[in-house]
Amino acid sequence: MAAKMQTLCDTQAGIYLNTLDVAPDDGSELAKAGVRIKKRTLGGGVSDGVDVIWVDNGVMRFTVLPTRGMGIGSLSLADGRRIGWRSPIRGPVHPKFVNLYDPSGLGWLDGFDEFLCRCGLESNGAPEFDAAGKLLYPLHGKIANHPAHRVAIGSDDAAQEIVITGEVDESRLFFSKLRLTTTVRVKLGESSLSVRDEVTNLAATPGEMELLYHINFGGDLLGEGARLIAPIKQIAPRNAHAAADLDRWDVYSGPKTGFVEQVYFMELAADANGRSQTLLCNRDGSLGASVHCNVQQLPCFSLWKNTAAADDGYVTGLEPGTNFPNPRSFEQKHGRTVRLEPGETRAFEIGLEVHDSAAAVEHSAGIIRELQSAASPLVHRDPPTDWCAG
Amino acid sequence: MAAKMQTLCDTQAGIYLNTLDVAPDDGSELAKAGVRIKKRTLGGGVSDGVDVIWVDNGVMRFTVLPTRGMGIGSLSLADGRRIGWRSPIRGPVHPKFVNLYDPSGLGWLDGFDEFLCRCGLESNGAPEFDAAGKLLYPLHGKIANHPAHRVAIGSDDAAQEIVITGEVDESRLFFSKLRLTTTVRVKLGESSLSVRDEVTNLAATPGEMELLYHINFGGDLLGEGARLIAPIKQIAPRNAHAAADLDRWDVYSGPKTGFVEQVYFMELAADANGRSQTLLCNRDGSLGASVHCNVQQLPCFSLWKNTAAADDGYVTGLEPGTNFPNPRSFEQKHGRTVRLEPGETRAFEIGLEVHDSAAAVEHSAGIIRELQSAASPLVHRDPPTDWCAG
Amino acid sequence: MAAKMQTLCDTQAGIYLNTLDVAPDDGSELAKAGVRIKKRTLGGGVSDGVDVIWVDNGVMRFTVLPTRGMGIGSLSLADGRRIGWRSPIRGPVHPKFVNLYDPSGLGWLDGFDEFLCRCGLESNGAPEFDAAGKLLYPLHGKIANHPAHRVAIGSDDAAQEIVITGEVDESRLFFSKLRLTTTVRVKLGESSLSVRDEVTNLAATPGEMELLYHINFGGDLLGEGARLIAPIKQIAPRNAHAAADLDRWDVYSGPKTGFVEQVYFMELAADANGRSQTLLCNRDGSLGASVHCNVQQLPCFSLWKNTAAADDGYVTGLEPGTNFPNPRSFEQKHGRTVRLEPGETRAFEIGLEVHDSAAAVEHSAGIIRELQSAASPLVHRDPPTDWCAG
Repeated sequence: MAAKMQTLCDTQAGIYLNTLDVAPDDGSELAKAGVRIKKRTLGGGVSDGVDVIWVDNGVMRFTVLPTRGMGIGSLSLADGRRIGWRSPIRGPVHPKFVNLYDPSGLGWLDGFDEFLCRCGLESNGAPEFDAAGKLLYPLHGKIANHPAHRVAIGSDDAAQEIVITGEVDESRLFFSKLRLTTTVRVKLGESSLSVRDEVTNLAATPGEMELLYHINFGGDLLGEGARLIAPIKQIAPRNAHAAADLDRWDVYSGPKTGFVEQVYFMELAADANGRSQTLLCNRDGSLGASVHCNVQQLPCFSLWKNTAAADDGYVTGLEPGTNFPNPRSFEQKHGRTVRLEPGETRAFEIGLEVHDSAAAVEHSAGIIRELQSAASPLVHRDPPTDWCAG
Repeated sequence: MAAKMQTLCDTQAGIYLNTLDVAPDDGSELAKAGVRIKKRTLGGGVSDGVDVIWVDNGVMRFTVLPTRGMGIGSLSLADGRRIGWRSPIRGPVHPKFVNLYDPSGLGWLDGFDEFLCRCGLESNGAPEFDAAGKLLYPLHGKIANHPAHRVAIGSDDAAQEIVITGEVDESRLFFSKLRLTTTVRVKLGESSLSVRDEVTNLAATPGEMELLYHINFGGDLLGEGARLIAPIKQIAPRNAHAAADLDRWDVYSGPKTGFVEQVYFMELAADANGRSQTLLCNRDGSLGASVHCNVQQLPCFSLWKNTAAADDGYVTGLEPGTNFPNPRSFEQKHGRTVRLEPGETRAFEIGLEVHDSAAAVEHSAGIIRELQSAASPLVHRDPPTDWCAG
Repeated sequence: MAAKMQTLCDTQAGIYLNTLDVAPDDGSELAKAGVRIKKRTLGGGVSDGVDVIWVDNGVMRFTVLPTRGMGIGSLSLADGRRIGWRSPIRGPVHPKFVNLYDPSGLGWLDGFDEFLCRCGLESNGAPEFDAAGKLLYPLHGKIANHPAHRVAIGSDDAAQEIVITGEVDESRLFFSKLRLTTTVRVKLGESSLSVRDEVTNLAATPGEMELLYHINFGGDLLGEGARLIAPIKQIAPRNAHAAADLDRWDVYSGPKTGFVEQVYFMELAADANGRSQTLLCNRDGSLGASVHCNVQQLPCFSLWKNTAAADDGYVTGLEPGTNFPNPRSFEQKHGRTVRLEPGETRAFEIGLEVHDSAAAVEHSAGIIRELQSAASPLVHRDPPTDWCAG
């Protein structure tokens, strides 16, 4: 890449910067736009020790969290409107305060407040237990609670782009050895960003991986009458509770105390290159956000509707993945884990776009309609036994 | 409050002070008395990263531990006499070194060295397992190992008072969302302090809580012939081992190698407003400490006698609580968990007083005698089945 | 000791130095030799917060890790040749990122990358579960993930020696209370070091301990044709897989993808005072390393051959111990746990020597041949039932 990168952390080289500010003042386009990147380490509470990178490209603000597997902590527009959800957990939460092996298998929830949280790499989805009740794979895996050992940030005046890179390992002697290498890019003055992840099997023996992007919307975008527009090839409710509201799968109600989450699994329609996208927009279509993915990389799409009360976490998750978030052995049995040969690398790309006008929302909706027009959706009224572990 | 407060930590506001010293030098009464408050972050060993607030009001010294749920770490008189116990654990211990989900359910013990340690908020008491042996609720709950996300310290010259406040959350998506807000106050030149806690249900759905104050005496106060003076309405041994010494429940032996803990459960007599107190004093009645509570807030009182060898933790715990420290489901079944409506707050107050003369001890004993005179104590020779899980 | 020591950490005294450099510049012999000791705290990744002491005596470099129970992190010659292994984990790893109670019992592996890692103190060896599958003792115990609360470093010009001391507690109320006090010494210009450990029972009641030194070689020393030379009194394969290659127990193959670890248990021959040693040398005998121990202190010797691919951890462990690394109850049953009376201290000594010439290697081999000549080795073709838990 042509960007001028500055290393923030490289544990093998002994580099670690407590603070870093990248605010071009060289008269460049980036400088004129008020672009600013800064890194700090938080102190106190459950955030104590969390490294945070704040990025402001003039129109959009977001954070990247090296300490939490390079997740994206929050996403807002420059005017303060919030696109990401507001978790009842007030983080970001340092992994030292998260016990993934809480015997319930749900310890991951104690750290869950990101806008974009990766679930993986060895496993994701519901916790899996052996016959004796011993926890084998905790909810959503480990990667979001592993810190990056190499992080760099930079800006590319030519491309008018900000770039953040990071490397996170999920390795254990005798077991899998997987490395996530991520590159986040955001252009000057655009309300969009891209994430390119590479997962490499560092081991000399074959490995297996799962990866799901838990992208969580709420704030000023989600509300009564909000809709999801998605190009459907197949859709199915995860369980009977979701099946009961299948006909309203794409419409959101407002916050409702005691609402029990509903999840829908989908295969998205895509273009010839596998590119697809889904669009979440508010009731009047004046604000929206798209999630772009490639079904050749991420063939499974899960929609998490959790329109509970605001204090309990009013949120929807748009979740492209290599698999559906079932217990790992179920996904493995149905061929939805990814095999990696020794040294093999797989790439996964996610695009996020915020649409700040009715025209932009409508433009995005049009693309999805076009993708849909080429596919006649198959609607499963009941959970398919090969998709849903039940 | 009229006190001039200074924020030490507020994670949502991005405030965190590494060090802070509040030592009035303005000629005020506080200044003249040599009042001093300071905050530091400890380094090294199991204390690494622990925030500590030291308070000295001229006659008494204690610490408050934001990193350990705003517990009170130690309590001494200004001349160095120690009122709190000396744990075989040399802390304070950072929660990152405590694994609450050690499958034994006893991981909490690895961090236990405070003078006043809160047990709660979702549960306290003995660990609870399901039928398959899976740990559901670890010993004494989570709150003592959760860090405060908001802390302030200040002094109030008018009231001649030092004030420390803190806020600690115990929250999980889909599960309970409880907030502890505590205020500790200590007056100039008085060997006493007060703790006012508020527990709020942050969720939109009803919640349940338990809270027990594990207040641990030892040091220069506890010894052969020390006594507990308490106004008894009902008292019962927790098990057969405690029942065997029921007639000596209020007298302490000296350190005895291999002594096995004995626990007595009580309902305290109280005044018309629910106010009650218990008094621990040494053999000759020259030094004592009272624990004040309100039985309308904290109806259950547990006495922990653990007069083992000094190296093994010679200690007694005076433990006012919403419940007895049985497994959570037992307490729930017997109506001793506290229901909190959405947004509801309950207050709990604890007073601690050190009596540094025979006259002061006798004065306190007199108050308790008066409380007792209005109640004829019911003594259960055996553990009542509704009080003791067995 | 006559060395001038400087306290680096003493949590009870409130001492903790972020950085320290000891580089004699006083014209002394140490100064002339370029001796240097420094301490830093690492930042970022899984090493975040780890205290490291680097020692360079002119010919050899190693690190001591207060945060990981005073383990020796790495060992190299001054010219950069690596003696220790290269773990697939890139640490050193802070204990806050290691969950010892991962229900598999194998969480310890997440932090395992040291050259010399102590396994103990309450237990070591394979994880032990109760009949219901509950984890009782995790793999290799806790001590490597406990931080030292007292650390000092110094140099002794008269003895031309560098000295590092540390104290680590493994204590829990109601359970065992063990203290490790270690002293590491290295002489000016010698490619050797000594470790003297004392383990004290701090409790007033009897205790039990296990201790095994997991000393891990790889790097430029281990390779195809490398050999272990050990004075054997008895040797046995741990299981059928090791038995199959019993005749080649002392020879190493090169890295081999998919190689499954083979372990051999031994009783070493020793001199009249119990002193013994083993020697690992490369194929042509030009580079070697000896591990010295005393069989009166450490009667059990385990050899871990894990000649897997380099990326998967090509390594051999030479492991003197009080016991064999079986589940704790098996060792206890066979009398290989160490009882400690109240206040009792046991000492354990380990010597490490790097031989950087054929002559030095041959000299060391000669000593071992001499030890062997006095003992006729007993070779168990199958795992003895009292040595191997199976």
